[in-house]
Amino acid sequence: MSTLDGSASVDDLQPFNDDWMNKYHGKSQIVVKPKTTQEVSEILKYCNDQGLAVVPQGGNTGLVGGSNPVYDEIILNLGNMAAIRSFDEVSGILQCDAGAILENVDNYLAEKGFIFPLDLGAKGSCQIGGNVATNAGGLRLLRYGSLHGTVLGLEVVLPDGTIYDSMGGLRKDNTGFDLKQLFIGSEGTIGIITGVSILAPKRPTAMNVAVFSLSSYEDVQKVFNETKAGLGEILSAFEFFDKQAYELVKKHMKEGGEAERKVFETEGEFYVLVETGGSNNDHDEEKLQNLLEKLMENELIQDGVLAQDQTQFHSLWKLRELIPESAGKAGSVYKYDLSVPVPKMYSLVEKMRERLSEAGLWKEGGGGRIREVVGYGHIGDGNLHINICADKYDDEIEKVIEPYVYEIVAEERGSISAEHGLGVMKAPYIGYSKSPTSIELMKQVKKMFDPKGILNPYKYVVV
Amino acid sequence: MSTLDGSASVDDLQPFNDDWMNKYHGKSQIVVKPKTTQEVSEILKYCNDQGLAVVPQGGNTGLVGGSNPVYDEIILNLGNMAAIRSFDEVSGILQCDAGAILENVDNYLAEKGFIFPLDLGAKGSCQIGGNVATNAGGLRLLRYGSLHGTVLGLEVVLPDGTIYDSMGGLRKDNTGFDLKQLFIGSEGTIGIITGVSILAPKRPTAMNVAVFSLSSYEDVQKVFNETKAGLGEILSAFEFFDKQAYELVKKHMKEGGEAERKVFETEGEFYVLVETGGSNNDHDEEKLQNLLEKLMENELIQDGVLAQDQTQFHSLWKLRELIPESAGKAGSVYKYDLSVPVPKMYSLVEKMRERLSEAGLWKEGGGGRIREVVGYGHIGDGNLHINICADKYDDEIEKVIEPYVYEIVAEERGSISAEHGLGVMKAPYIGYSKSPTSIELMKQVKKMFDPKGILNPYKYVVV
Repeated sequence: MSTLDGSASVDDLQPFNDDWMNKYHGKSQIVVKPKTTQEVSEILKYCNDQGLAVVPQGGNTGLVGGSNPVYDEIILNLGNMAAIRSFDEVSGILQCDAGAILENVDNYLAEKGFIFPLDLGAKGSCQIGGNVATNAGGLRLLRYGSLHGTVLGLEVVLPDGTIYDSMGGLRKDNTGFDLKQLFIGSEGTIGIITGVSILAPKRPTAMNVAVFSLSSYEDVQKVFNETKAGLGEILSAFEFFDKQAYELVKKHMKEGGEAERKVFETEGEFYVLVETGGSNNDHDEEKLQNLLEKLMENELIQDGVLAQDQTQFHSLWKLRELIPESAGKAGSVYKYDLSVPVPKMYSLVEKMRERLSEAGLWKEGGGGRIREVVGYGHIGDGNLHINICADKYDDEIEKVIEPYVYEIVAEERGSISAEHGLGVMKAPYIGYSKSPTSIELMKQVKKMFDPKGILNPYKYVVV
Repeated sequence: MSTLDGSASVDDLQPFNDDWMNKYHGKSQIVVKPKTTQEVSEILKYCNDQGLAVVPQGGNTGLVGGSNPVYDEIILNLGNMAAIRSFDEVSGILQCDAGAILENVDNYLAEKGFIFPLDLGAKGSCQIGGNVATNAGGLRLLRYGSLHGTVLGLEVVLPDGTIYDSMGGLRKDNTGFDLKQLFIGSEGTIGIITGVSILAPKRPTAMNVAVFSLSSYEDVQKVFNETKAGLGEILSAFEFFDKQAYELVKKHMKEGGEAERKVFETEGEFYVLVETGGSNNDHDEEKLQNLLEKLMENELIQDGVLAQDQTQFHSLWKLRELIPESAGKAGSVYKYDLSVPVPKMYSLVEKMRERLSEAGLWKEGGGGRIREVVGYGHIGDGNLHINICADKYDDEIEKVIEPYVYEIVAEERGSISAEHGLGVMKAPYIGYSKSPTSIELMKQVKKMFDPKGILNPYKYVVV
């Protein structure tokens, strides 16, 4: 076990105390980085006996302050537990340590012809255990479903040091309550995930991507319906973003020294990215070609670009994947990820712009303290991301946005967190998405697993 | 609310007290059939206050005695709550009462171009609420995944009458513990499911089915690997059965008056059924044709039949679907559904035959008290069904089979119940599949939700 000893300076602990947006700042003096499940167990047992609070931390890529201390909680970082434990090519069942990095695991699976059923912008640093603990959604959910369906088993250390082990990882097992489900999305509040068993699908041998420009959000919805019908079982992603997001990405790429190039003859108000994954490229290209013709004929798209090779495949994906990073370059970003019925999705971005405009914070074309408001997300899942780029994080601005943003979500019976989780940011607002009965049951669950309340306090469902 | 009054005879209650295999027999004097969630709530509140035990009952098609009283528990039957509440064609989200019958719901969805993500032999009488309460698996799991991934929300009445409502049914929602997951597969022990919100996929517009005869279980596995590679995203079912199962089906069909017809030129030791579902029939047929040629070339199959029309599609499926019914005609059936690694699956059937032969109960070719032992199941899910047809249910026979069958499963770290659940039949054997830590946590969950222990006592995880 490597513990930062007394000689470590405050600076050494900074990357563990701060989140990557530089929005949340803890003051912990202790980071422990255990190497085995047994060590995690011993640490938790000790902390539980002594009544010491602990924050579990994976890749620290969260967006709601869930993996940083609020005060001086002990940070238990999983980074030293990163091994792939086993992979069975017959069943596709992968077992790994919680600290394994998503991209590493996906690359490992790619070599065997399999794919990790989850993909995220943060894949280069986020960890599988953190993904499961936050029930991460991401770019492949449309095709492969949620982690509640793909995770087959977990190894979890409970607050008193007990190890709960369901790593056997059978595809089907109806022998009692499916306890592992409670840990998926529990944000480190009832146990620390140390191992994950998950079902990896066969990697598609053919993949294609296309990006369209469109003139209205109504057309985005129409294109979504045509795409589902035309591509059927090979549709693997359907993402949208608005022109404000696209402009930020172009600016960011230019600043990064990339040569300016015209992707679309006709730019639009909205953009849609469609990805297919299948087992026969001829069939897939034919389906995609038929779809394109139909969309053109019906004048649902203004322009379209189809990747011709691997390089273009990745550069088209970058238009979507670079949005969060580009927003970060434009200022301090207030990030909201919301579930609302698809027809209502974009109106929330418009309402937010109006609200900020009325408060004198945002002006069309720039010039206000809010530099930009962009909307993008996973249409297929009803999941909208709103990024609000401010000159800096500021209580005054926050009060204009929150709880207003949660109120307009609640009006549509949506979720105030589609995938980012509650963390410290949204803990006070859970009532906008959950009933008093649900919240009361959640408190009972927390008490059952963590009676002393040592795990990730002040967050999630506050008891 | 319709309650059977004092004038009902014992015979009237028989269908509620007995299970359909005629293996489990309760002695309840009271059946209640509420029409609304509010009525369910009032009944449970009353029973909880008075300390009266209640058995929730759906279509009563279970195989482990989970939906019948053990003694004189009050039967709460959901049959009068069978409405489809709403369906949204944009998102594919269906909301229905727990008592809705699976086949009715699937037919309703078919008219709209959607499919229920679950299919079972008992679809004509099983109910959605019961399917969720038992986490039913069935024939479409390979393609659409488990109910833990497809169920989006539940309405559940807790033992004290409180209504837990998460029917909003968003595709993504990370605001606190995903409590609904606990009810999926809880077998009516912590709450009574009254409403279900579930994601229905688009119904494939092209469907094909083929059945192959093979000479060994090793070839079954090889064909499975070739099929996954060749059919990729359009593979929707991969079922296998042994020649003993096939003989029972042929006999049953003949006794039912169907004209005898030769399905295969060359019969085999094993049979495999492959189903595809896609959005372009030309593409699907080409993939299937290529696969067939490859399997013939490599001599992995002895013979193959491809359905040419809807009638043949259904008659080929009947070869697989009629197995349980045909076994039932052959005697009193001991049914086991087990999860084990695919390479080990069939050896369990062989071990069971050996065991019964050594005990003088079974002879190759017939003549013993055990008339037949058949193996079939869902290779894609690692799920094996063993049916043992006896002259009658008998403790002596049972003692030869159990716990032996659970011991050989535990040796392979498998599950003693892949999909049927625990009920009263397997409650005593949970230790073969779950650790003491898991069982202890389950008992705590039960106590948290049902402190007086009124719901479905003597079953599942016995506190």
